[in-house]
Amino acid sequence: MVEKQKVIMDCDPGHDDAFALMLAIQHLDVLGITTIGGNCSLENVTANALKILEVIERPDIGVYPGHSRPLSSELVTAPQFHGESGMDGPVLPEPKIKAQNTHAVDFIVETLKSTDDVIIIPTAPLTNIAAALNRAPEIASRIKEICLMGGSVTFGNWTPAAEFNIFVDPEAAYRVFNSGVPIKMAGVNFTRQCAITETHRDRIMMIPTKTAKFAAELIDFFMNASKEAAYLSVATLHDACAAAWVINSELVTSVPMRIDIELKGEYTRGMTVCDYRHLRCEDPEIDLSNHPTMKFRGRNPNAEGALRLDFTGFMGLLYETLRNYP
Amino acid sequence: MVEKQKVIMDCDPGHDDAFALMLAIQHLDVLGITTIGGNCSLENVTANALKILEVIERPDIGVYPGHSRPLSSELVTAPQFHGESGMDGPVLPEPKIKAQNTHAVDFIVETLKSTDDVIIIPTAPLTNIAAALNRAPEIASRIKEICLMGGSVTFGNWTPAAEFNIFVDPEAAYRVFNSGVPIKMAGVNFTRQCAITETHRDRIMMIPTKTAKFAAELIDFFMNASKEAAYLSVATLHDACAAAWVINSELVTSVPMRIDIELKGEYTRGMTVCDYRHLRCEDPEIDLSNHPTMKFRGRNPNAEGALRLDFTGFMGLLYETLRNYP
Amino acid sequence: MVEKQKVIMDCDPGHDDAFALMLAIQHLDVLGITTIGGNCSLENVTANALKILEVIERPDIGVYPGHSRPLSSELVTAPQFHGESGMDGPVLPEPKIKAQNTHAVDFIVETLKSTDDVIIIPTAPLTNIAAALNRAPEIASRIKEICLMGGSVTFGNWTPAAEFNIFVDPEAAYRVFNSGVPIKMAGVNFTRQCAITETHRDRIMMIPTKTAKFAAELIDFFMNASKEAAYLSVATLHDACAAAWVINSELVTSVPMRIDIELKGEYTRGMTVCDYRHLRCEDPEIDLSNHPTMKFRGRNPNAEGALRLDFTGFMGLLYETLRNYP
Amino acid sequence: MVEKQKVIMDCDPGHDDAFALMLAIQHLDVLGITTIGGNCSLENVTANALKILEVIERPDIGVYPGHSRPLSSELVTAPQFHGESGMDGPVLPEPKIKAQNTHAVDFIVETLKSTDDVIIIPTAPLTNIAAALNRAPEIASRIKEICLMGGSVTFGNWTPAAEFNIFVDPEAAYRVFNSGVPIKMAGVNFTRQCAITETHRDRIMMIPTKTAKFAAELIDFFMNASKEAAYLSVATLHDACAAAWVINSELVTSVPMRIDIELKGEYTRGMTVCDYRHLRCEDPEIDLSNHPTMKFRGRNPNAEGALRLDFTGFMGLLYETLRNYP
Repeated sequence: MVEKQKVIMDCDPGHDDAFALMLAIQHLDVLGITTIGGNCSLENVTANALKILEVIERPDIGVYPGHSRPLSSELVTAPQFHGESGMDGPVLPEPKIKAQNTHAVDFIVETLKSTDDVIIIPTAPLTNIAAALNRAPEIASRIKEICLMGGSVTFGNWTPAAEFNIFVDPEAAYRVFNSGVPIKMAGVNFTRQCAITETHRDRIMMIPTKTAKFAAELIDFFMNASKEAAYLSVATLHDACAAAWVINSELVTSVPMRIDIELKGEYTRGMTVCDYRHLRCEDPEIDLSNHPTMKFRGRNPNAEGALRLDFTGFMGLLYETLRNYP
Repeated sequence: MVEKQKVIMDCDPGHDDAFALMLAIQHLDVLGITTIGGNCSLENVTANALKILEVIERPDIGVYPGHSRPLSSELVTAPQFHGESGMDGPVLPEPKIKAQNTHAVDFIVETLKSTDDVIIIPTAPLTNIAAALNRAPEIASRIKEICLMGGSVTFGNWTPAAEFNIFVDPEAAYRVFNSGVPIKMAGVNFTRQCAITETHRDRIMMIPTKTAKFAAELIDFFMNASKEAAYLSVATLHDACAAAWVINSELVTSVPMRIDIELKGEYTRGMTVCDYRHLRCEDPEIDLSNHPTMKFRGRNPNAEGALRLDFTGFMGLLYETLRNYP
Repeated sequence: MVEKQKVIMDCDPGHDDAFALMLAIQHLDVLGITTIGGNCSLENVTANALKILEVIERPDIGVYPGHSRPLSSELVTAPQFHGESGMDGPVLPEPKIKAQNTHAVDFIVETLKSTDDVIIIPTAPLTNIAAALNRAPEIASRIKEICLMGGSVTFGNWTPAAEFNIFVDPEAAYRVFNSGVPIKMAGVNFTRQCAITETHRDRIMMIPTKTAKFAAELIDFFMNASKEAAYLSVATLHDACAAAWVINSELVTSVPMRIDIELKGEYTRGMTVCDYRHLRCEDPEIDLSNHPTMKFRGRNPNAEGALRLDFTGFMGLLYETLRNYP
Repeated sequence: MVEKQKVIMDCDPGHDDAFALMLAIQHLDVLGITTIGGNCSLENVTANALKILEVIERPDIGVYPGHSRPLSSELVTAPQFHGESGMDGPVLPEPKIKAQNTHAVDFIVETLKSTDDVIIIPTAPLTNIAAALNRAPEIASRIKEICLMGGSVTFGNWTPAAEFNIFVDPEAAYRVFNSGVPIKMAGVNFTRQCAITETHRDRIMMIPTKTAKFAAELIDFFMNASKEAAYLSVATLHDACAAAWVINSELVTSVPMRIDIELKGEYTRGMTVCDYRHLRCEDPEIDLSNHPTMKFRGRNPNAEGALRLDFTGFMGLLYETLRNYP
């Protein structure tokens, strides 16, 4: 039997973080969950992580609270999408299991020092990861990969140019993208393709597990909130895409590119400036067959930018996962 | 007979400017050609404009030299694409007709004060247009429309985020996009679709006019330069698209959007920051049927951003035009 | 008899501009007055320049209206200091003499092309000067000097870091300071020393000329406005210092320094960033004896920054000037 | 007997840091010394702190190594002033006492949680302090005061506008100045007044303690380096001024002001933008008697900016301190 990939989940659950956690915990070796103030306050997102572990009956996984706000900017939250609790919808009791006393940053640093080949999957602002890299720069060479939900190869969501997770703490993102660690970026250009409709929700409701019921309730709330706040008729599971990429890289079409973080722009602060001029990806179908012959014009790539999701494959993975939980 | 649309061509020829001029002069009422240092020095681009008029035998159209460099930045030129003369390829004698003594900015201001319903078609940095708006702010309300080649709805060409014409004089672009004049933006995301191959060139060579021969020689040089400088096997007639849009708007699919000019970014200076979050245009086919029901999230649109070119229709227009010249 | 220095006055009168004009017209050879929207609208400042000429009975000097707003930014005015007319206080009839039809920028360009050794004295945002340099870059080498009121060697007035004239059109200032023309900067650090008290005002009122009466009324209004708007009990004749510097350079202590214009800062847009680390000018008395032995650390100086005004000498010049007018 | 003020020293020794430590340890209750990569590498500055403790025979004070580089920027060091070891000059054996295992940030957080009325005295880039505030935002309300060496009320040293400690990690400074903690800023405008000449050095050499000999050797090296690198004939004890301010506030004239940190400027990144327009401090003598009647024009003050040092008083304190050590 193949050993599962060891990962640390860094998140701010969050409806779509919940799906990332459900996917990762079943298919990967989750060494710990670190939390951060982002979608909602640190207290709420930590409680939400614990609640998820109770639903899926995995109290053995440690939850480590981290930073409560960005490095330099003020905290920005997104109650219009996630409700007051940060994960409104399912009605759940206060979790009985408790968060760890170790700070998220210390957990990350110590785990990376003692364990080889760990992938970090951040689905939140990159504050914890940047703080860990600042506190112990030597861990950069020990991280196998950072596969993050955030940024965009094309346009943004929070501003015309910037995606929420990067916009909230651009200085942290700058630190991570310039750390030398191999980056995989599941940006909104890509995660928007993970759009759950009512049909998918109905099919999930027919799966006879309490986890599936929990998932359907999350989708219900998130779909309604997206309708109100963004005129979208779907629930987009952004964060789940980052976990799915690590679980099965064949679900994702990506290309190497240079990605810089804009800190100074008046209209572009928090933008992930992607150099993919070697592609012609505004064409209806990206012609990937050509790109290896195109040289990079600028600096060397520091990241893989995700372009296309095999959504049918993703949904198959999700149905299976919900079926195999309690 | 329908009266032709009155236009001013503001340009820095330039291989693709030449095509813009050939299209415009046959199908529109060109009141004058203003030139500006951009692709090459002001002296060269002015001489090139005069040469084009001699080839197509239209010495009656006035050429008005304008600004020789950007408002604040240093001049940047593109000899790798256009050669030392700014329009290398065809061997032409020095032009016998002369440029006008009136400055481009004065010509623009006076023309707009005396003539209704004029469209300006800039296919160069926006220095002249901004200077005219600065000198006589009252003309803003008299311009019917500015249909420009420049910027990008998606990614850039000169930098990852910025297109050449806007990058060269972002302060001028800022002035124009914030002037209140209706803007049509033919950005590189769109003009890249106007990609002339060897097959098209061969077909042009079979048209028995000296103008077609001139056009084919321009394409030859430009195609080779693009191969060397940008690993492209096509000659992209960026500027011609702006003229074609005014000639026949049915060739272009566009949508209204808010476009801001980034002046301050470290990686994004000169970017046209487009807010088209109301669309989902990273989908393989842009679903335009949906967008009127999507509200704008940000400020009101100030521009039409071009998305798709009917390239077959464009080529039909170009063949016809070359056939009808001497 | 020594020939008078030929100058162009570029201004937005303005109470302190009025004093600059009165000084310059008596002691220098004023080739023309160009106006610009700044302290107040272009219409008002032009009318104010004409009124001043009527008071001092010099209708022979031409007034050339120029730009009505900055190159890129919106117009900012200062009615709290200068009143609704831009020069409130003295009650004057509408001027009978008229402004010229030639645009300020054309007047500047043509004068410099035809006349040697001209000094420009701008006491307003640098929009006209930048536009002239943009329109005819070749004039840069023909300007003897630009001696301007604006900026600061130390701190600002309009913002903590920026002075009004530069803040209003930083892009224009950037153009001027990077033009290669020798610059003398009479910044607010220096012009603040030109602080007229009630005692000075009383002494001016005793001069039996109508110009002195006009001057005293200007001071009265300006002093009261400064009290209300800035808690200052003096009338500071900022603009007059630039004219005085050209009239008698012995009134001014200055040193060469590199001055850059900040366009991008969040808190520092429009700041004149002065490199005078070779001095120790926070000492109670600037020790100029030392500075020639200190090498510049950065780039070469592009300007003389004024540090100290001989205020007694200045007042002597002013009293004499008011006495010698009608 | 009055209880000594409890302080944490955050530093990167550094010649002038050494003087700050010598002053603080004798006159204040130093709870611990935290170190940070700045003037030199983290390893070196930590070793230097330990060596100082050995010279003054105070091995009881803990040294806690902290961050080795800035939050977002690359590390910048100053070997031209401090030599390769960061504290060249005195020849000292490797220290026998060892640094603590607790990270500087943890020491700061835990100390502040358990102890009331602590003042932090940073004489280095503010990386550790910002990291502590990020990790435990609740400590902001428990810090009595941060009295730091860094920034400038007037001009900079590392760039025309920015001082070294702030320039090296502006994002950290931004965090600290916006934390709500009362700030005292001993900027270079003020610390430049602490200029040790050869006469002072000679007098120190006559003090018959090994600490005085150590101090004189530090001054010798620093004075020579300053001569070579900055054409200064003095050794400026910048960092010592921050400690002296806490020891005896009567040595310092300061005024409240709003201080913002510029992150975005092209020429001003890392500048401490001070709003002291309510003062007239370019006058030869700052007239403090007036300022309470001047309202602030901008936002409320967040800091005390130091203006004048009683240098004679400072030297008295220093001589006494060196005499009372072994």
